Parts: sequence; C-alpha cells; structure tokens
Amino acid sequence: MRVIVVGGAGTIGSAVVAALLPRHEVVVAGRKTGAVTVDLASPDSIRAMFQSVGKFDAVVCAAGQAKFGSLDDLTEADYAFSFSNKLMGQANLVRIGRQFIADGGSFTLTSGVLGQEPIKGSASISMVNAGLEGFVRAAALELPYGIRVNVVSPPWVTETLVARKMDSTHGMPAAVVAKAYLSSAEGTMTGQTLDPRRLAGL
Amino acid sequence: MRVIVVGGAGTIGSAVVAALLPRHEVVVAGRKTGAVTVDLASPDSIRAMFQSVGKFDAVVCAAGQAKFGSLDDLTEADYAFSFSNKLMGQANLVRIGRQFIADGGSFTLTSGVLGQEPIKGSASISMVNAGLEGFVRAAALELPYGIRVNVVSPPWVTETLVARKMDSTHGMPAAVVAKAYLSSAEGTMTGQTLDPRRLAGL
Repeated sequence: MRVIVVGGAGTIGSAVVAALLPRHEVVVAGRKTGAVTVDLASPDSIRAMFQSVGKFDAVVCAAGQAKFGSLDDLTEADYAFSFSNKLMGQANLVRIGRQFIADGGSFTLTSGVLGQEPIKGSASISMVNAGLEGFVRAAALELPYGIRVNVVSPPWVTETLVARKMDSTHGMPAAVVAKAYLSSAEGTMTGQTLDPRRLAGL
Repeated sequence: MRVIVVGGAGTIGSAVVAALLPRHEVVVAGRKTGAVTVDLASPDSIRAMFQSVGKFDAVVCAAGQAKFGSLDDLTEADYAFSFSNKLMGQANLVRIGRQFIADGGSFTLTSGVLGQEPIKGSASISMVNAGLEGFVRAAALELPYGIRVNVVSPPWVTETLVARKMDSTHGMPAAVVAKAYLSSAEGTMTGQTLDPRRLAGL
C-alpha cells in the first residue's frame, strides 16, 4: 500500500512509519516537515496535500492539537482551537480525503485515553477525543467503495513521559502503540476505537 | 430546589418541568418562549440568563441544535453550527453557570443515543453528543463546592416519532425519559452519562 502518515515525524508517527516501511510505501506529512506539509486546521491545506500526493491507499494521522488547561483557565478560544485542529482537522482528512483515496482504502485517526479516562485539565481534550470517536462510528456507516475509518486511542506513551520528565512506569512504548495503527490500516475493521492496551493484552 | 430548565417548552423539557413541579420551583428558559430567553450559541446570552434568574440550585438543559445530514451533504458550516450550539452551548452552561449556581448544585445536559449508536446521517450529531459526554466526564473532576454535572443520553422519544409520523414502537415516552433528568438533579452522581433505557430496566 501507499500510506500517508500525517504527523509522521512525531513520537507516535515515527513509530508508525518505522512499522509500515518494511512492507509499504510511506509518504510523511507534517506541519513543518515531511515530503508534504499540511495544516490540519485548514481544509484548503488538507485538499492541497491530497492533490499533491497523488494516488494512495491509506491515511494514518498521528497529529492534531488540543489545549490542556483547568476549567478556569480554558477560554472559548481554546475550545474552538481544539475543535478546529484535533477534531475537525482529522474529520476533514476523512471528509476531503475520501474523494481521493483508493477503493478499499482506510483512514486511521488519533484520539487518546483522556477521551474516556479524563484527568483534571483535560476538559477540552476529553471533548475532542470523545467527539472524534463519535464521528468515526458514524462516518464508517456511510463511506462507499469499501473505504474504512477507525480511530486509535493511545495511552500515555513512554517516550513522551520520559521527554517531559514524568513517571514513565505505566507508559507504553511508541513501537507498541504503533501496532494498533497497523491493525487498522491492514485489517478489515471499520468504525472502531482501538485501544492499544487491549490489543497488547493489558 | 430552584431549577432552570433550558428548553422547558420542548418535548423532553416539558416532561422534565412536569416531573419537577410537584416538589421544586421551576424557571423555564427557551430560545423564544419561557420566563427567560437564551441563545445557547451565545455565551453573552447565557450569562445574561443566569444574571436575570438570580439564585438557583440546578440547571437542566433539554435544548441544543445539531445538523442531521449525509456525509456528502454536511458542510464545514454544519459541523461548526452543531459544535457552537449543542456542544459548546451546553458546555458553556456549565462554564458560565458555575459562577452563579448554589453550592452543591447540579447541571444536567442532553446528548442522545446517536452519540454511541449512530445511524446514516448522524456524523455531526454523533460527534457533538459523544464530545459532550467527554466534556462532562472531565469537567466533573474540577467543579468545586460539591457542584455536579451529568448528561442524559435519551433514546428516540415516542412523542417525537409520532409527530414525525415515524414508527414509534420502540420509542420511550418523554415522561419516562424525564426520570433520568430527575435522577441527576436530585441524586448525588457526577460525571455520568445517564441512559434512560438502563434506568428503566430496558
């Protein structure tokens, strides 16, 4: 397959690229780096990315920003930013990309553990993660030509915790998280929220 | 208690008002009717509503609009409308209302069955319903002074199905749905998504 990995230079994205490379062609996309650049908050930028890439069979997105902050600190603008970027940005990869993707192709998006297991400060992130999972369940019912869509909900990633000097005891290595993305891209499921912890038997 | 019911003239809202009236004081709010009017899409309008109502112990919201339409037909603007109205509008009842509500008070919002059980055409509705449930789970962790927040996820309501001349065999009467809102407002739970079907033992 020819696979576009949006956020392919990030912690999870680069692990997905490494896992895909032995048997697939990979096109790395990113905000600032990669073979093609894309701004998830801009539908025009997303369309331009698909037009420039040409034919492809799958999209994996391990990108999308959302604001962390206390209920007191998060502003209207913070919620709007999280909505436009991590939620609508990834929904737009599907809405726009389905006009370009090969029959039988797949989209694999990223939510995150905070969607279902919140912590203090995650109101905006929990909103957009859960909202994306709702969108994916619904969109899967309408995609034609065998096109599929799933979302991976990663737990805390070891490399991220180490980089932030946080306790990484319960983190999952990015290479293990990446397997969930491969399951979605190479498998047959659609409309699913994939929890890498469950796939790893944890 | 003194309870503000936003959307108190609607199908579910009027059933909630009827269920509250025997033992609580009710202030009906609505877009066009009620003791006080409010536009959920406008934070200023929400703030004005709370300022005009004075002291209150609970808010029940059975209002909020989201767009139904196929994946092909739904536009960027449709998703933005659904986000601003049903999702952020209800989140803003909590964000703004917590500055006015009595200690130990509660917010009870409305998502809907399509959040977890989508149908064709529900992509935007499923997104905002699930997103609201994510917000509620997270916001509950940070509300001070014993203030609670829950969301009711109503199934199809009999009266709505009858009004739309749809098969109402599996609908739930609004008066039964209303019991879930009372459970939230009078109970002690927080951060929960309440399914009236489960409460009814279905």
